[in-house]
Amino acid sequence: MLKQCAAVLSSAGMVFCSLGAAAPAAAEEAPSLTAKQAETVDGLIDAGLEDDVAWEIVESLTTEIGPRLAATEAEARARDWGAAKLKSLGFKNVRIETFEMPYWGRVLEEAEIVSPFPQPLIVTALGRSSATPEGGVTAEVVRFRTLPELQAAPETGLEGKIVFVDEPMARMQGIAGYVTAVRKRSQAPVEAAKRGAAAVLIRSVGTDHHRNPHTGGAARAPDLTPVPVAALANPDADQLARAMERAEGPVTVRLDVQVETSDTAESGNVIGEIPGQTDELIVVGGHIDSWDLGTGAIDDGAGIAITTAAAKLVGDLRGKPKRTIRVVMWGAEEIGLNGADAYAEMHKDEIERTIIAAESDYGAGRIYRLDSGVGEAALPKIEVMEKALRRISIVPGDNTSGGGPDVGPIRRMGVPVVDLVQNGWDYFDLHHTPDDTLDKIDPEALRQNVAAWAAFIYMASEMEGDFGRFPAEEE
Amino acid sequence: MLKQCAAVLSSAGMVFCSLGAAAPAAAEEAPSLTAKQAETVDGLIDAGLEDDVAWEIVESLTTEIGPRLAATEAEARARDWGAAKLKSLGFKNVRIETFEMPYWGRVLEEAEIVSPFPQPLIVTALGRSSATPEGGVTAEVVRFRTLPELQAAPETGLEGKIVFVDEPMARMQGIAGYVTAVRKRSQAPVEAAKRGAAAVLIRSVGTDHHRNPHTGGAARAPDLTPVPVAALANPDADQLARAMERAEGPVTVRLDVQVETSDTAESGNVIGEIPGQTDELIVVGGHIDSWDLGTGAIDDGAGIAITTAAAKLVGDLRGKPKRTIRVVMWGAEEIGLNGADAYAEMHKDEIERTIIAAESDYGAGRIYRLDSGVGEAALPKIEVMEKALRRISIVPGDNTSGGGPDVGPIRRMGVPVVDLVQNGWDYFDLHHTPDDTLDKIDPEALRQNVAAWAAFIYMASEMEGDFGRFPAEEE
Repeated sequence: MLKQCAAVLSSAGMVFCSLGAAAPAAAEEAPSLTAKQAETVDGLIDAGLEDDVAWEIVESLTTEIGPRLAATEAEARARDWGAAKLKSLGFKNVRIETFEMPYWGRVLEEAEIVSPFPQPLIVTALGRSSATPEGGVTAEVVRFRTLPELQAAPETGLEGKIVFVDEPMARMQGIAGYVTAVRKRSQAPVEAAKRGAAAVLIRSVGTDHHRNPHTGGAARAPDLTPVPVAALANPDADQLARAMERAEGPVTVRLDVQVETSDTAESGNVIGEIPGQTDELIVVGGHIDSWDLGTGAIDDGAGIAITTAAAKLVGDLRGKPKRTIRVVMWGAEEIGLNGADAYAEMHKDEIERTIIAAESDYGAGRIYRLDSGVGEAALPKIEVMEKALRRISIVPGDNTSGGGPDVGPIRRMGVPVVDLVQNGWDYFDLHHTPDDTLDKIDPEALRQNVAAWAAFIYMASEMEGDFGRFPAEEE
Repeated sequence: MLKQCAAVLSSAGMVFCSLGAAAPAAAEEAPSLTAKQAETVDGLIDAGLEDDVAWEIVESLTTEIGPRLAATEAEARARDWGAAKLKSLGFKNVRIETFEMPYWGRVLEEAEIVSPFPQPLIVTALGRSSATPEGGVTAEVVRFRTLPELQAAPETGLEGKIVFVDEPMARMQGIAGYVTAVRKRSQAPVEAAKRGAAAVLIRSVGTDHHRNPHTGGAARAPDLTPVPVAALANPDADQLARAMERAEGPVTVRLDVQVETSDTAESGNVIGEIPGQTDELIVVGGHIDSWDLGTGAIDDGAGIAITTAAAKLVGDLRGKPKRTIRVVMWGAEEIGLNGADAYAEMHKDEIERTIIAAESDYGAGRIYRLDSGVGEAALPKIEVMEKALRRISIVPGDNTSGGGPDVGPIRRMGVPVVDLVQNGWDYFDLHHTPDDTLDKIDPEALRQNVAAWAAFIYMASEMEGDFGRFPAEEE
């Protein structure tokens, strides 16, 4: 534990660490909860650990709506569902805030080894991929073991070829494995476009060994013709690599990706509130859109369910909370954080009175750490929070958190954030695949999340003073 | 152990049990291996535990051929591959024995909940399913929790409906969970046809929670219009059941299954031999066809690889084996055991001199038990075999074995059999799904299989006397 803490200290500039005797001086002046507040926190944790509301929410969303790709009719149904659900749970000021965005959808995705070992390969198009010509593109495959290998490749030699980036992903509890692997998803099509390649295949950004490829957004290079890009399921990436190893000559693959797009389509955010005694805001939530392959249970039905159920527990307490608690179900997170940007734009006048924000968008695993992105003077408050959460196995983290993808824009506008960091060990077995379904959620872990979020929301609402502003570069 | 053995004794008429002091009298007269034979057996086990040939075979087959549905061009390529592989490994009398059979292939399989919760469902058509009308059939779903519930349903009331048989499968080390669950696959379409249903959906016969539905052969009722039948992935069966629970009225599903068929197409068996000092035969092998969804690694590339590599180890010994060892790669097992029937018919004159037969067709898990189906007088020989295999954790089994699906016809013609019973705990997570790929094979478990089979083949070849005839009902 001390070793881990030391590592955090060395890698982050501003950090608090309450392990061992070497806690910073600030801890000695830490504020504390009143006896009544502490009792309420304990009661909320107890209630969260028995909660069935979060499960009901995520079961309802994933069953009654299912997949809900950004800017589709299914996402619109999900917004209506969200507004109705918030109202039925007693939230006030429930509204849907729509916005316009481009639409992208998959129509067809097929791949096969044409020669020398003809057989199908299982692929999925990445978000915003361009289409191949009708019937697909058939070309020789050139394999790069990693993205850096492709980046280091000469500028000529890949014209008309299918680039295959085979970089595997490290399984980790935290996000670092994904942070590295996902660069392949965004950058491989750009690197391939620079070199005139016909198409790109990447090994799925995922840690499983199932025939379920992982989709996700791809980047496009400005000023370059976009290249169709698809992800191979991990066993299919293995297979293509083995075929290349065993073939005496080139391996030829046919990739057929057809998509539909439109410049403007409607998406939206859903908002509900527990009005407080002041107009200061605590903003929490998850994103209501999902990729189209699964039913969006862990990404991010769980986040919607956890934050809504937790806020409801706080709302059920006697009397109004000190601050207003706002639950946001952001739209169109997956394809480009459109809902997050729209929210920040529509609510820019409320930024000053948004005391703290946090999103749940890392699956449904247990929370094991409390990270923050707050002003240094507010770190003692975070320490108080963490100590209150210790009984459900949550340890101190660092102060470099971004708060989750959908709070990114308001964080960059100065809003402090926290991260209730979830165990992601299995998350990338399922992330962005057809396998993101309700049965993957452990009800006990979901309850632990509700307990932690309810306690956090309550403490954030009731604590004296603010959480400062994280000294972001943008300020 | 004693308890387990007692259970075996009570459930099987003819059995030998060498545990404890109560071993039957026959054990006292058990033959034993000569010192030299025992040394050879040990050497074969040691060599098997270091074997890389089986892995090379299954990697080659699954990579260079991939899926190989019965009576397709891919299965024909697999036969050519098999003959070339056997020759390259030094087998003699290598030949392909073709036969004609009907062909069935899937063209399209789609399903969706139409109302009240519109969303796609992931399905796969079962083998020999009839087609729906173009565009599919849309109808109300009627759910039965089990096959017996459907079987007990009235003869009227299901006309034009989609019957959904939601029976789950028990995870077990042995075959009993499958034996029960698979009845749903074969019998549900028959029961539905009797009642005039429009289509049948079954929960996949499998123990996993992935969006990979399990295919497999379905039965047709003679004299009844066949009903299209497809399997839902387990999470999709969960989803449909939940949708029915949450819907206020009927749940309507559209199922679209399109197939292609022909009355005659070519399949075949591949045969290779290690000639012995006599024309007595030891017949071992696996099936070379696979379902089309995966690459047939565990079903049954592994069986081909294990038996071929094991026979090669015996062939590599100095001098000819006493009996001729024949490796058979049966064709068209999955769709209807056509290769097994063709082999029995083509080789009926050799039945009398076929001393014993065995197939490896239960995945690639470790062998934990030696079952047999031999004449009672031969049981002491089986006991000798089991004792020699004990060092690789194989325990005695019972004498009720069928020897594997492809030796069924020759067993019924009187040929004794053994079963080197594999651990099937995880087998039905993968069986008949796209996930049946090479990465699911544990190389160490594969080697243990090779070790056991090499020792078995050698002992079967060298032991004095025969294995009698199992007193089958047909005799």
